[in-house]
Amino acid sequence: MIRFNCDYAEGAHEMILRRLMETNLVQTPGYGEDEYCEQARETIKKACGREDAYVQFLVGGTQANLTVIDAALRTHQGVIAACTGHINVHETGSIEACGHKVLAVNGRDGKVEAAQVEKMCEAHIHDDSFEHMVQPKMVYISNPTEIGTLYSKAELEELYRVCKKYGLYLFLDGARLGYGLMAEGNDLDLPSIAALCDVFYIGGTKVGALFGEAVVILNPALKEDFRYIMKQKGAMLAKGRLLGIQFQALFEDGLYFEISRHADQLAMKLKEAFIEHGCTFLAESVTNQQFPVFKDTELEELGKDFSFTYQERVDEEHSAVRFCTSWATKEEDVDALIEKIRNLR
Amino acid sequence: MIRFNCDYAEGAHEMILRRLMETNLVQTPGYGEDEYCEQARETIKKACGREDAYVQFLVGGTQANLTVIDAALRTHQGVIAACTGHINVHETGSIEACGHKVLAVNGRDGKVEAAQVEKMCEAHIHDDSFEHMVQPKMVYISNPTEIGTLYSKAELEELYRVCKKYGLYLFLDGARLGYGLMAEGNDLDLPSIAALCDVFYIGGTKVGALFGEAVVILNPALKEDFRYIMKQKGAMLAKGRLLGIQFQALFEDGLYFEISRHADQLAMKLKEAFIEHGCTFLAESVTNQQFPVFKDTELEELGKDFSFTYQERVDEEHSAVRFCTSWATKEEDVDALIEKIRNLR
Amino acid sequence: MIRFNCDYAEGAHEMILRRLMETNLVQTPGYGEDEYCEQARETIKKACGREDAYVQFLVGGTQANLTVIDAALRTHQGVIAACTGHINVHETGSIEACGHKVLAVNGRDGKVEAAQVEKMCEAHIHDDSFEHMVQPKMVYISNPTEIGTLYSKAELEELYRVCKKYGLYLFLDGARLGYGLMAEGNDLDLPSIAALCDVFYIGGTKVGALFGEAVVILNPALKEDFRYIMKQKGAMLAKGRLLGIQFQALFEDGLYFEISRHADQLAMKLKEAFIEHGCTFLAESVTNQQFPVFKDTELEELGKDFSFTYQERVDEEHSAVRFCTSWATKEEDVDALIEKIRNLR
Amino acid sequence: MIRFNCDYAEGAHEMILRRLMETNLVQTPGYGEDEYCEQARETIKKACGREDAYVQFLVGGTQANLTVIDAALRTHQGVIAACTGHINVHETGSIEACGHKVLAVNGRDGKVEAAQVEKMCEAHIHDDSFEHMVQPKMVYISNPTEIGTLYSKAELEELYRVCKKYGLYLFLDGARLGYGLMAEGNDLDLPSIAALCDVFYIGGTKVGALFGEAVVILNPALKEDFRYIMKQKGAMLAKGRLLGIQFQALFEDGLYFEISRHADQLAMKLKEAFIEHGCTFLAESVTNQQFPVFKDTELEELGKDFSFTYQERVDEEHSAVRFCTSWATKEEDVDALIEKIRNLR
Repeated sequence: MIRFNCDYAEGAHEMILRRLMETNLVQTPGYGEDEYCEQARETIKKACGREDAYVQFLVGGTQANLTVIDAALRTHQGVIAACTGHINVHETGSIEACGHKVLAVNGRDGKVEAAQVEKMCEAHIHDDSFEHMVQPKMVYISNPTEIGTLYSKAELEELYRVCKKYGLYLFLDGARLGYGLMAEGNDLDLPSIAALCDVFYIGGTKVGALFGEAVVILNPALKEDFRYIMKQKGAMLAKGRLLGIQFQALFEDGLYFEISRHADQLAMKLKEAFIEHGCTFLAESVTNQQFPVFKDTELEELGKDFSFTYQERVDEEHSAVRFCTSWATKEEDVDALIEKIRNLR
Repeated sequence: MIRFNCDYAEGAHEMILRRLMETNLVQTPGYGEDEYCEQARETIKKACGREDAYVQFLVGGTQANLTVIDAALRTHQGVIAACTGHINVHETGSIEACGHKVLAVNGRDGKVEAAQVEKMCEAHIHDDSFEHMVQPKMVYISNPTEIGTLYSKAELEELYRVCKKYGLYLFLDGARLGYGLMAEGNDLDLPSIAALCDVFYIGGTKVGALFGEAVVILNPALKEDFRYIMKQKGAMLAKGRLLGIQFQALFEDGLYFEISRHADQLAMKLKEAFIEHGCTFLAESVTNQQFPVFKDTELEELGKDFSFTYQERVDEEHSAVRFCTSWATKEEDVDALIEKIRNLR
Repeated sequence: MIRFNCDYAEGAHEMILRRLMETNLVQTPGYGEDEYCEQARETIKKACGREDAYVQFLVGGTQANLTVIDAALRTHQGVIAACTGHINVHETGSIEACGHKVLAVNGRDGKVEAAQVEKMCEAHIHDDSFEHMVQPKMVYISNPTEIGTLYSKAELEELYRVCKKYGLYLFLDGARLGYGLMAEGNDLDLPSIAALCDVFYIGGTKVGALFGEAVVILNPALKEDFRYIMKQKGAMLAKGRLLGIQFQALFEDGLYFEISRHADQLAMKLKEAFIEHGCTFLAESVTNQQFPVFKDTELEELGKDFSFTYQERVDEEHSAVRFCTSWATKEEDVDALIEKIRNLR
Repeated sequence: MIRFNCDYAEGAHEMILRRLMETNLVQTPGYGEDEYCEQARETIKKACGREDAYVQFLVGGTQANLTVIDAALRTHQGVIAACTGHINVHETGSIEACGHKVLAVNGRDGKVEAAQVEKMCEAHIHDDSFEHMVQPKMVYISNPTEIGTLYSKAELEELYRVCKKYGLYLFLDGARLGYGLMAEGNDLDLPSIAALCDVFYIGGTKVGALFGEAVVILNPALKEDFRYIMKQKGAMLAKGRLLGIQFQALFEDGLYFEISRHADQLAMKLKEAFIEHGCTFLAESVTNQQFPVFKDTELEELGKDFSFTYQERVDEEHSAVRFCTSWATKEEDVDALIEKIRNLR
């Protein structure tokens, strides 16, 4: 059984394990106040072109989302997200457990559209009962989105402009950021993202690390007391060095980008095979997640040798599924899958 | 200016004020543990035909909703509600502030449909990532709904059946319950509601009282420690007697039903005038709230003498608005409004 | 049975009932946006000598405490209170339910002392693990305290000075404020309190009203979006006018002070009888709550005709109890109690 | 500079790193549903002698504490802990952020005493205002405690008996459990702890692992839906295998106990040196944390070569500090410290 069901099926890139071995018995202070973290912070700030960025390392995506959002919002304020947004459907109500409503909007391609934000803010301001409604205060987006699509630079600029117009924070969840940045047709990079968000994070868990998300805060209002809230949420790793070591390994020489490109290239190879086979797609993805539609009988056949994620029923005989590549995917495994697809009758 | 914008524009029915006067200097224990409350509890239990009901008096609707829901749900559990449900849009995120997600469904006529609940529960159970999603555990409905429509007995039976099938609580918000029970065509009464819900409340604030909602808990699992949670939410009135006195006045001789019928009858009279004028309606309401569509120029004219609530834009020249009658509405005011409508050119 | 167990055993002062009768059928907007509330706000601002004060009316004390505190604090911030403080022991964890820790200090006479606040802030600032600890951000005091004692003006000045030094808000719970202001030896008044707090409230529930607390916010940082949070907590009364009418009745001609003085005078009369009988006291109170120590056998005898609150065991044969007078206490009832005490053998 | 300031200054035991290397490219399901976790669960259940135990792996101690406690308590229920308990002072109000009050008691030696629990429960039950107070529902203890002391089997039995008598859950935080179990004079082991708790955890972060705490739930009431709440709190590691691999390495051949004994033995060696030097102790610890009192001038001297944690001022010239050994401590470093102490003039 070869796994294409997710992008976190293996451990970590060998470079990371090597660094963990080398530094293992060095004594450091805890909680991310060590030199490795300091070094990684500097590296990331440089990569973002922002000396004023405030960087903290967290363990996972749900943790990063709830910590950032709870740190930013007062009790009556909500966060706008796509219906399909991770915080809206796949975090067991973590944002609500912190007291905040997720204000879901139904955007195209799994995105939040600037016009939707504007409309919601205008409606809020002009409603006589505005105090009876949750106040929109943040926009949460993922890039790539949950269905593998990308925000263009123009879209992000427009979203940021609307956020600033109405006093909202813009938060970009980059759990798969590498796969977005290296995708064909992408026109964003770290500096442009840092310029167009109040806060974002660079995902490590799905891009080569054992675990870890680097939260980059640009807006000074969101920096204050952030570490108190990390601690409160159980999000301050005792051996914080483990995060610093990993992110330094990923960013000091461009490893993060290199392994991301690898995953994207294999995903495109796979995509061609899907197209060749005549598949349609749940969404047009240029990143490491692909959402082809197959006949159920074909899926049964594929499932004998390959794992993938069931996504949704399309009609009585067809379903959409998800195939992921990752930093760890072997080209030979992709080739085996393609061979299998070609042999589906 | 005559107000038709809401059903809480006046104080209380004179009978209630009289009782408050008469009992004013009687000394009682606090927090609803007095004889007036005890008496009112017995009266309500009798009206519901349920000696085993557990009755507590709260001050307002938002307070009742958040107290009941937070008392019922564990931290990972959510409450299904209509998109238009009061808890989903008009309580400033009170349910989320208690830590729970509102799982909104888009039902016809402002209702939650049994089939929607079943579909959500089935989807939850069969999703591989079910632990990553909020667990549906309660259904919240209002009867009448926010747009004046009513659940039939058959609909409520079906909803309750599905709730029991999947282990969900059914909670009926009866902020305007009287106006529902006295409406033409309604086939529910207090005993049938008590038999088809786990918990519901009888609204006083909008039906003759100064304030107050009588929460009736039928399911034993929801009774335990309920008063602790009332106190915690600031929902335990020091002079709880004020609530007992009011509900006893409303229910001992059927005053609640009588004044509700009054409001409904005037609403129907008004409805006929809307129809005669050629209005369409945002929703087909048989209760005290009517949602006619008028030309904007007509609304401007009506607004000179009468207040109503702006609901939504229908097209470039038309808007839907809300007119409410209540226990306190004077027939002469309704007549004046009808006259004005007839004179709109 | 004559009740001295609390100060909320009756309804409301007759003047208040009269006003509620007179205005009963006047139509007003809801949620405290009516003219009665506006008028009462102006009256209270004048009484405080602060045109810039922001006044909102809430229904009860627990509700006022949790709304003010949750509106003021971020998620990692706590509120310093006396061990015996109402929010620390008698609100079923309402502050914690909003996510905030109560940082209890053991002050003399049920008070929070400025030196204790300073010590806690200094300790916090200088602890290497400060981010692992709740950040002190507010001081909560009651005046009178839970055990009937009063802050002097000098004490309040010192407390406020320390709060400002460390960036903390000072919040004064005035559930029984009238009884404090009219007490012998008190040197505070509304303007001095308004000058020495960031926010406080004037209690109506225990001082002549059916219910109601007037929250007075002085610090602009605490005013923003306060009504959103009121609504979210179920603390925005639909018929808000009921609160405006009551507070206007209490403050337009000094009724609040007059009825408070009445209660204090009767409490002093009672206190003399306790002293004459040889009682010691749990605390030296100059306000309407008295905490004498009696033999258990004497309490049994007193309990036949009078109700009081059990406070705590003092030794094997003695207990401390609480007797309250109020705006509604009749002098003849006090005399009857005194007679009974004199007849205890 | 040699670090004795904490027990998490290094990475992980080499056996753990080796296992992570060996398994690195094996593909597994995520979220702790892999074979490594399954295997480690079986190993731990066997070590506890409880086939019915429910074992989940979390990343850190604060996370484990808040997840277990929030999963167990309803909104009005609190957790009893020692004043010095980690959840009461060093987790930035994480329990309160989940809505629950920590009910602090001041026990000897950093412990919660059975008699204190009994007293609090009795007081709660018999208070007329019990509904106005937080309901005690859980007891949280750490073993070893925050100051290095141990519960005896008799103490734990008594505590558990009282918990069962009043319907409370007993939760044991074992962040340093190994150092307790291997200490001189300890009479507890995993099976006896499993028999005398409702839930406990075995700390990995401080005992040889990179990170990780194994939560062992014995009481069926606490098992239901636990993983939902893990996910909600950001406590479900995507690559859960990392936890399974580590705990299997620690428990399959007794490594956990062996490295714990190592730390305890070095701590005792150090303790003798403190005694020889004439130190008194903040607490009598038999575990890896020692709390000697030194002159401030001596501390300054020691601080040139060794790091330790400042604990508290004892008098004008003396302070208590903390020295920790761990699984990673080298005997030569302990010898160097002892030599330095002997040379303090």
